[in-house]
Amino acid sequence: MTPDSHDSIRAVLWQDGKLKLLDQRLLPGQEVYLAYDRSDDVAAAITDMVVRGAPAIGVTAAYGVVLAARHRYGESQQDWRQAVEADLEVLARSRPTAVNLFWALERMTALLDGISGDPEPVLLAEARLIHEEDIAANRRMGELGAALIEPGKGVLTHCNTGSLATGGYGTALGVIRSAWQQKRLSEVFADETRPWLQGARLTAWELVHDRIPVTLIAEGAAAHLLKSGRIGWVIVGSDRISANGDVANKIGTYGLAVLARHHGVKFMVVAPSTTVDMNLASGDLIPIEERGAGEVLNLAGQSVAAEGAQAWNPAFDVTPAELVDAIVTEKGVVLQPNREKMDKLMYGQ
Amino acid sequence: MTPDSHDSIRAVLWQDGKLKLLDQRLLPGQEVYLAYDRSDDVAAAITDMVVRGAPAIGVTAAYGVVLAARHRYGESQQDWRQAVEADLEVLARSRPTAVNLFWALERMTALLDGISGDPEPVLLAEARLIHEEDIAANRRMGELGAALIEPGKGVLTHCNTGSLATGGYGTALGVIRSAWQQKRLSEVFADETRPWLQGARLTAWELVHDRIPVTLIAEGAAAHLLKSGRIGWVIVGSDRISANGDVANKIGTYGLAVLARHHGVKFMVVAPSTTVDMNLASGDLIPIEERGAGEVLNLAGQSVAAEGAQAWNPAFDVTPAELVDAIVTEKGVVLQPNREKMDKLMYGQ
Repeated sequence: MTPDSHDSIRAVLWQDGKLKLLDQRLLPGQEVYLAYDRSDDVAAAITDMVVRGAPAIGVTAAYGVVLAARHRYGESQQDWRQAVEADLEVLARSRPTAVNLFWALERMTALLDGISGDPEPVLLAEARLIHEEDIAANRRMGELGAALIEPGKGVLTHCNTGSLATGGYGTALGVIRSAWQQKRLSEVFADETRPWLQGARLTAWELVHDRIPVTLIAEGAAAHLLKSGRIGWVIVGSDRISANGDVANKIGTYGLAVLARHHGVKFMVVAPSTTVDMNLASGDLIPIEERGAGEVLNLAGQSVAAEGAQAWNPAFDVTPAELVDAIVTEKGVVLQPNREKMDKLMYGQ
Repeated sequence: MTPDSHDSIRAVLWQDGKLKLLDQRLLPGQEVYLAYDRSDDVAAAITDMVVRGAPAIGVTAAYGVVLAARHRYGESQQDWRQAVEADLEVLARSRPTAVNLFWALERMTALLDGISGDPEPVLLAEARLIHEEDIAANRRMGELGAALIEPGKGVLTHCNTGSLATGGYGTALGVIRSAWQQKRLSEVFADETRPWLQGARLTAWELVHDRIPVTLIAEGAAAHLLKSGRIGWVIVGSDRISANGDVANKIGTYGLAVLARHHGVKFMVVAPSTTVDMNLASGDLIPIEERGAGEVLNLAGQSVAAEGAQAWNPAFDVTPAELVDAIVTEKGVVLQPNREKMDKLMYGQ
């Protein structure tokens, strides 16, 4: 990575025959890469949020399949295909909402039957291709999304959708990077994004390093900001988009969409087509992960709530398509999404 | 205070000739009372949020006037009235949004000219009366507000509006206490209320001690919760209500009101009539305090944001009257508030 720009930072690396993940739990205080050579450890890293962000999870899982196949092939050159099935299941159970995970596992699995001999070279080439395609998709979405933005106003984003959440560059943050370079944005606001503080810890870290001024707000300040007239677009990523254009994304996204509509602010979702799940008719079918209460009750290892308090910690919510002004994918832009338009985007007709 | 109930805890005490404030910055970890005998220290305590909550600030300021008068009378039995003016100004500058502060200072100031001899007994009696009236108002509002709630659903509250924010018992939290005792509530949710975490630290602390089960959520989860159908009312306090029924309250309140309306959930504001400012025609005239960026960038003394990130930290927002279903005061309840109804509430016609 270059010292001055984080648009080229890599949260997920393949290096010296190992998968390396930048431990996002420690950012921005420490930049530590953890090395993995076993797929079950990779699954645990996804569950524990060493790596997070739907596209980054997909890329990570692809490399996880490489590690699983290497290990099982080392155990038995005859039975490795069967043995690897269990590893795939562990990877698939690591997190429920981001469909990119399942997409990547399916794409890797589809190769297994055709492999003769050592599976690692074939699978590694595919994982690297998935990774490179994701970066290319992000660059393309950056251009497409930026083109939607009339110059002169600010944007508000939520969670982290940058290089850390993807193969590289970013989805919503890629659009913001691209729009900023084109001088379309007067200012960039980011929700701090409780409970995990992806906005404060990760998005701000990426933007500060890119020399894009960023102003953090508590989620509670979003309505007051949107009322001010300073914001033209709310721009977010997604973990899964159903066939009708409903959008699952980090908890808080749905509220932002309601508030944006109430104030006449436009709402853009930026996600690669690997995030679209045409098997689900609508967003209410998307499984929503609920994480532990401790993420709300504690912060940086310290208890912040009164002892005895409970917490409810849904990690995602679903924004109905009618609140979305634009879905930006590398295949193209869908305005006012619905089933017909999503069909056309994904199937060309 | 009793060990089992925090509805009778006192954030503000007059004891041994001193004002004692429960240091709310240290809760829930430590219960420490700080003693004050100088009014400028009291003003600093309000600014620094040793004490917070509009009614509690009003009561604190009233006792602050007692301390100012004692000190100035000790300096000069002739010129104390003139000297105390400067102390009143310092108290008035301590925080800008809660009108209860100015109301309490005016009520105390009105007595000064009529005092002969030592001002302390007269002023202390008045401060105690303000304090007792506030507790009585809270109890009355608790009854009036609870009566509006159809049994069977949950409520969501924001910030802290309990004993800690008032003379005692609480405004919105008083209604919740009362409604819980009457078995009208299936469950109680509280926003953690970033950046200061009044919900997690203070509201949860009060409710846990009252044995009222409380579930904290990050503000971002409110829309997802309201969509679930589990919540009948969002219930909040206020720092200032303008003559048309617009409501200034803790940042995040306005967004909750928009979300409540979007989901058909009712929105109740509970505040004593001392919070109503009939001198301001509408909420856009209410001064909104902006506090330091550090409250967002740090948490519990630890930096939580990337170095170089900025933050915007408005402490309050304004909810327009049309999003409010009920304003509950000790004088009575105003449904769908407007100027005419507020006039009738405050002036009896």
